[in-house]
Amino acid sequence: MKLNIALLAGDGIGPEVIDQAVKVSNAIAKKFNHEINWTPALTGAAAIDAVGEPYPDETHAICEAADAVLFGAIGHPRFDNDPSAKVRPEQGLLKMRQKLGLFANVRPTFTFPSLIDKSPLKRERIEGTDLIILRELTGGIYFGERGRKDNGDTAFDTCTYTRAEVQRLAKKGFELAMTRSKKLCCVDKANVLESSRLWRETVQAMEKEYPEVEVSYEFVDAVAMRLVQWPNSYDVMITENLFGDILTDEASVISGSMGLMPSASVGEKAKLYEPIHGSYPQAAGKDIANPLATVLSAAMLFEDFKLVEEAQAIRDVVNKSLAEGIVTEDLSEGGKAYKTSEVGDWLAENI
Amino acid sequence: MKLNIALLAGDGIGPEVIDQAVKVSNAIAKKFNHEINWTPALTGAAAIDAVGEPYPDETHAICEAADAVLFGAIGHPRFDNDPSAKVRPEQGLLKMRQKLGLFANVRPTFTFPSLIDKSPLKRERIEGTDLIILRELTGGIYFGERGRKDNGDTAFDTCTYTRAEVQRLAKKGFELAMTRSKKLCCVDKANVLESSRLWRETVQAMEKEYPEVEVSYEFVDAVAMRLVQWPNSYDVMITENLFGDILTDEASVISGSMGLMPSASVGEKAKLYEPIHGSYPQAAGKDIANPLATVLSAAMLFEDFKLVEEAQAIRDVVNKSLAEGIVTEDLSEGGKAYKTSEVGDWLAENI
Ligand SMILES: CC(C)[C@H](C(=O)O)[C@@H](O)C(=O)O
Ligand SMILES: CC(C)[C@H](C(=O)O)[C@@H](O)C(=O)O
Repeated sequence: MKLNIALLAGDGIGPEVIDQAVKVSNAIAKKFNHEINWTPALTGAAAIDAVGEPYPDETHAICEAADAVLFGAIGHPRFDNDPSAKVRPEQGLLKMRQKLGLFANVRPTFTFPSLIDKSPLKRERIEGTDLIILRELTGGIYFGERGRKDNGDTAFDTCTYTRAEVQRLAKKGFELAMTRSKKLCCVDKANVLESSRLWRETVQAMEKEYPEVEVSYEFVDAVAMRLVQWPNSYDVMITENLFGDILTDEASVISGSMGLMPSASVGEKAKLYEPIHGSYPQAAGKDIANPLATVLSAAMLFEDFKLVEEAQAIRDVVNKSLAEGIVTEDLSEGGKAYKTSEVGDWLAENI
Repeated sequence: MKLNIALLAGDGIGPEVIDQAVKVSNAIAKKFNHEINWTPALTGAAAIDAVGEPYPDETHAICEAADAVLFGAIGHPRFDNDPSAKVRPEQGLLKMRQKLGLFANVRPTFTFPSLIDKSPLKRERIEGTDLIILRELTGGIYFGERGRKDNGDTAFDTCTYTRAEVQRLAKKGFELAMTRSKKLCCVDKANVLESSRLWRETVQAMEKEYPEVEVSYEFVDAVAMRLVQWPNSYDVMITENLFGDILTDEASVISGSMGLMPSASVGEKAKLYEPIHGSYPQAAGKDIANPLATVLSAAMLFEDFKLVEEAQAIRDVVNKSLAEGIVTEDLSEGGKAYKTSEVGDWLAENI
């Protein structure tokens, strides 16, 4: 297969972890006889510095032309401490999601047996956890009308959803559930919000198309609790943008392996893969960041192109590196800490 | 002191746990020479059955006339499974909050040394946790304009905040922080929402009035993570209604003692105290529910009337009951399980 992949390394540790995913992907291409063309493009603070905005048109054109995007991380402390900054790296993220139509964010949370004791939760609570949150990513209060009134003394944001937006996300949820345990949980706040009532009635109406899927409906506050209490009681969850933002982050820390969690964001055509960790500026340039989340994001990429063996080969080599202690300092526990680049080299060689 | 307290037992286990808080409060009144007049009033499903709505005008009049309200729980499964129900118990809750002007929900999360192993978190993560979330309770997306368009195919909800609403909540937060460790965390989503930017700028402007308070600003998604990772790194937190709904529930389970967590909701004048657990219909009428959260809510009530010794006497007797194993079946761990009413009697006798 021939794959054109746009490479958006972004800020902080982005470039370093992306490099390792490229090494590993190239090793996969070689072994399985594929051809990958990488096209780098600017994003985030790096793009603001170069051309004045975080998701330049040129970058968008490269992403649109590609079969998929591999993304590092964006965000820079310089902007966090400067409320007067007119252009912010995060705006690039939102613009990219919207312009590429990446309406579904796929966020798995799973455990690595060898890392289970890193979880803040007790072993018996976290063991066996393997869930996926599908977060709607291009609608809701993120993209609704907002503004000020009364000379700036009143602020408002609007959460809007259409039935079609709910349907396309829910469809992905039902389909994903069919490939797994056939359990789907719709997370909303239908006891208060009209948009949540639309979500719930839309999903309810779709149930009959997927008679094998057992659907449950839970309020977001209850889910925020149960994710901490019994995360292993969940499988596929679907939810709107803001609830998804909060719950995916909550879910990401319960496994204790946040540095290892990959993600995908997909649209009708576009596909983007990125680690869920941030740009971690303190570690930038030090060759110490853990590249595994980005490498596992590349595995998700291959899988979405039906290259299942290739994806599995990546997961296997990652597990092997964990078992053999070829890990960065965050996981080394007093043993030898390998550099980011060393881990990448080892993985590529062991493919 | 003479106190007039409206007694809203509500649904499910509400009446049973309320009874124990009344016993304990009466014992306090006797010991410290106060006079308490209790005025029962209908709310929740019980009120729907009796008069067709969950927060009747008569109940409101009783609450308004009282010095404080002691509240049990509302909610009944009959309504959860009936989407056609036009009147729902939860509406009573929202109406009550609004009509009584209960703009600040005070939700402590703390640990009991003897119960720490009930937490889903590892001991070293949860030990020492003692935080309070102040949730804005009468504004935001709960009370903004909402509705449908496009023949019902588009739904919207509006989150609105005024500077004055933020100020009165934040003021409580600063004042509370001054009585504790002088650390205040403002939780928002200012990287996306205009209403959050209003929150942040309003709180920032108030910082100079409380020079001793160290204020931090965190995004709600980051807080959802850190609450699980390092809950003991927080002290006083302030946030808007919906974020507060999610985060207070998440926080409530980390201590492992959800059945013991009290809460207060206060306005300019009105004061309401309630356990944070729900109506727990499966246990209703069985005399098995844990009354301690309601009893500790009564302690918050006394404290708010500056009856600090009285509040401490309640906390002391609760700790004594835990130490001596005078507990309901949820805490009995194979030892003797006392009835709800027996625990209440024991507490009242030991005041
Ligand atoms: C940076 C921010 C705008 C973004 C979001 O809220 O979507 C981030 O938290 C995420 O989840 O990718
Ligand atoms: C029942 C519901 C409307 C309510 C809320 O969301 O405020 C509840 O979850 C709470 O937190 O008291």
